[in-house]
Amino acid sequence: MAEAARGRRGGGGAARRAERTSTKVEQAAYITRGIPDFEILTAEALEIIETNAEVVLEEIGVAFPENETALELWRQAGADVRGDRVHIPKGLARKLCATAPSRFTQIARNSDRNVEIGGRNLVLAPVYGPPFVRDAGGRRYATLEDFHKFVKLGHMSKWLHHSGGTVCEPTDIPVNKRHFDMLLAHMTLTDKPFMGSVTEASRAADSVEMCDILFDDGTGSGLNDRTAMISLININSPLTFDSIMMGALEVYAKANQAVIISPFIVGGAMAPVSVAGTLTQVLAEVMAGVAYSQLVRAGAPVVFGAFVTSIDMNSGAPTFGTPEAAQITYGAGQLARRLGLPYRSAGSFNGSKLPDAQAAYETANSLNTGLLSGVNFMLHACGWLEGGLVADFEKFVMDADQLGVLHGLARGVEIDENAQAMDALREVGPGGHFLGCAHTQANYKQAFWKSQLLDYKPYETWADEGSRDTRALASARVEKLLATYEQPALDPAIREALISYVAEKKSGMPDAFM
Amino acid sequence: MAEAARGRRGGGGAARRAERTSTKVEQAAYITRGIPDFEILTAEALEIIETNAEVVLEEIGVAFPENETALELWRQAGADVRGDRVHIPKGLARKLCATAPSRFTQIARNSDRNVEIGGRNLVLAPVYGPPFVRDAGGRRYATLEDFHKFVKLGHMSKWLHHSGGTVCEPTDIPVNKRHFDMLLAHMTLTDKPFMGSVTEASRAADSVEMCDILFDDGTGSGLNDRTAMISLININSPLTFDSIMMGALEVYAKANQAVIISPFIVGGAMAPVSVAGTLTQVLAEVMAGVAYSQLVRAGAPVVFGAFVTSIDMNSGAPTFGTPEAAQITYGAGQLARRLGLPYRSAGSFNGSKLPDAQAAYETANSLNTGLLSGVNFMLHACGWLEGGLVADFEKFVMDADQLGVLHGLARGVEIDENAQAMDALREVGPGGHFLGCAHTQANYKQAFWKSQLLDYKPYETWADEGSRDTRALASARVEKLLATYEQPALDPAIREALISYVAEKKSGMPDAFM
Repeated sequence: MAEAARGRRGGGGAARRAERTSTKVEQAAYITRGIPDFEILTAEALEIIETNAEVVLEEIGVAFPENETALELWRQAGADVRGDRVHIPKGLARKLCATAPSRFTQIARNSDRNVEIGGRNLVLAPVYGPPFVRDAGGRRYATLEDFHKFVKLGHMSKWLHHSGGTVCEPTDIPVNKRHFDMLLAHMTLTDKPFMGSVTEASRAADSVEMCDILFDDGTGSGLNDRTAMISLININSPLTFDSIMMGALEVYAKANQAVIISPFIVGGAMAPVSVAGTLTQVLAEVMAGVAYSQLVRAGAPVVFGAFVTSIDMNSGAPTFGTPEAAQITYGAGQLARRLGLPYRSAGSFNGSKLPDAQAAYETANSLNTGLLSGVNFMLHACGWLEGGLVADFEKFVMDADQLGVLHGLARGVEIDENAQAMDALREVGPGGHFLGCAHTQANYKQAFWKSQLLDYKPYETWADEGSRDTRALASARVEKLLATYEQPALDPAIREALISYVAEKKSGMPDAFM
Repeated sequence: MAEAARGRRGGGGAARRAERTSTKVEQAAYITRGIPDFEILTAEALEIIETNAEVVLEEIGVAFPENETALELWRQAGADVRGDRVHIPKGLARKLCATAPSRFTQIARNSDRNVEIGGRNLVLAPVYGPPFVRDAGGRRYATLEDFHKFVKLGHMSKWLHHSGGTVCEPTDIPVNKRHFDMLLAHMTLTDKPFMGSVTEASRAADSVEMCDILFDDGTGSGLNDRTAMISLININSPLTFDSIMMGALEVYAKANQAVIISPFIVGGAMAPVSVAGTLTQVLAEVMAGVAYSQLVRAGAPVVFGAFVTSIDMNSGAPTFGTPEAAQITYGAGQLARRLGLPYRSAGSFNGSKLPDAQAAYETANSLNTGLLSGVNFMLHACGWLEGGLVADFEKFVMDADQLGVLHGLARGVEIDENAQAMDALREVGPGGHFLGCAHTQANYKQAFWKSQLLDYKPYETWADEGSRDTRALASARVEKLLATYEQPALDPAIREALISYVAEKKSGMPDAFM
């Protein structure tokens, strides 16, 4: 039982604070896989894709528009820069990627919640980015109050290791001030690790400054190069590295904060309609982005990302939980491992308007794929609805419950003497039953994963209780979790310092809604 | 595209009849995997389980109660028979299993629908056994009319290769006469392959006689050893081989009809609470059952079955889509392959009372596991609800649609020049889009799997059309499929002969409801 056995990690001031502030919420440690990865691509296919990606980088190149700093770094590294197009000679990008660590620790203010990203691990984080929310009352624009509720639900979710970032867009707060309120929520309403702002370089810098306050050990040295944030740097696929995103990347890499270099691909629109072609593009884009992060600061922590969906060629709508998305997710995992980088992909993806069967089929397809493809950091692991337009409260707790299935499966199969259960087989024999035998009594409590949400009741009991479907059960669970939520303790001086910092930064700043 | 390329199989009278009777329903050929299996157990774990299973067979033994024929066959084969307990010396069961074929063809009356069970193939069959049905109107006892509807829906389902057996129990028909009506439905309402009766040896014999009529080539030689049925022989776990089930097995094996030897296990009740212990028992039970089938007739086609669920230790309710069930399903697949036998497991398993998100999560977990664990014959692939008590019309079409995801994923990743899409990457370049490029135009029709049920519409359109959830969409699809169903043509002489046979057998037979 890796969950139970794994002890406290890290130490120092954060660990001491954690001891003072621990809450009673039951929490699983991040997943460490005891099972192999599913490898869908042959060695030959992998080599073809890797060779083609190098051709893409050299012949076609990647664009870094409006970013003289980046172009100059590329020139110095030996790339052939023509206009804003960077042609990267074969082998250069892969060589630059080699300084990126294969795994790294992201610290949390409660060091029990530190996560190790890479290796055989899987860290689960919630939905990111939706402008809308949905609850039992329907769909509406998200507010900061919704944001706070999601952070609280994430804090209460046993199987969620990470508080995420923009769990929904607090659209009632000006765009240029939102990041302060979002970070303040992640820093004060939970003690799990979180993500930084990427919508402007200055907001990334604000994020680092707030972490300097939160993680200061009392000496005023701030973060001091410890990695306390992981942030999502989307690539403008195909092959374009937006200067705003790169501005945030530059801030984070310089401060040794982790970034996910993530092609954002609706197959057929931002990438070829074929799996192998898409994988080629993904690999080229990630190698260029990771290489650039290492030009900014060699050794900065970075993750191989792949957000990939397919498309309904009739309507143009993105589609989720599809076989092609699964194939790409499996294949990209293999490419990431060969590159020696942590891998981010999969999530509670679905295109449904409601947290119904469609949402669940598509989500389960992606979650299962994510586990078996070797994902190390799964963003959007719960709460995603309607192609990412909506963060759904009911689905958040439904998905968060299913994340327990991933934990159970990932444990692998024990084969010690107790697990072999030969005594039980001898004790019971033909025609008997195992309910009361000694082996069952000694093991049943840990034997089976159990949902904290789903219905296992007899039909008659279920009918007497109102014939509730999963949505109704989830709605009740949302209310229960929010009602029992307790804020984890935080040093009052640090809290005051954060609040003062935000108030000072906001004062005099004109509201901007774009 | 294996589906499109695979041509007509078989020949002779069945093939000629098929040409005359083909309908226009779009049908996929059974899956031939272009992807590897997921192997969860190490070689060491497999060897321990195999060694332990031999210990179980020799030391504990298996029971064949009230079955002198079986005990005598075991004695002659060299087993140590004490009372009804058969102790099988180490190595004997595995040696006897060796005469069972690793793959076999099950013929259909339309030879385009023949299925090859074993190897890299996956044949999908519908739900089996529920006494209740559910539709938009609620839950009620199943009738023959319901049975007919399910057979028609199965016939119309593109991704379903098999018509199954007891898709629901026609409870309005006496138990001793049901099998006639069920077989008549499978033989006349569809031209896909089907299953035989197992509730009594005489009913298995009736099933064979009806196949003799259906598959006669005009010479009166009947089935003539061709395999036209696959039937479900459940083991009374732990380690007990019910004489009624064995009676059916004996009839089928003698007639060279396929059987699935299937431990029926709710973990913690009929097997130990541990995965390794359950796998040991499953392997022992299957080896004993398969060995027995080969004692009845060496070379008779037989399948390694494993119906395995976990249990909620509080309520005693079986639970589905759980991590432990997945681990057992993966592990049993490895054991089956090492034994050289086709493998049956997984399905649309769930414990929900409604075709809601719970049903879909649990089902998707099991379907994905089934594909990756190397299952060759998946019973219950669609329509299962409420722990198998209910065959649900809406869920039947919902699951049947998701089976398309398995087809797409199983195709594997193409890596030829067209799939590499280098021309597309060159044509589009940084910042462009692929929607109109030559490669997309040439490939988009086959590029992505597309649901025939799920909602991909813009939010506003969806809301204008009544904000329907997956159940509502499925209910409409059930009606549409039944309304457009066309009965596949059948030689009128054969139809008359079948009807006469059933009428004659039924006449004078007193009704029995147990």
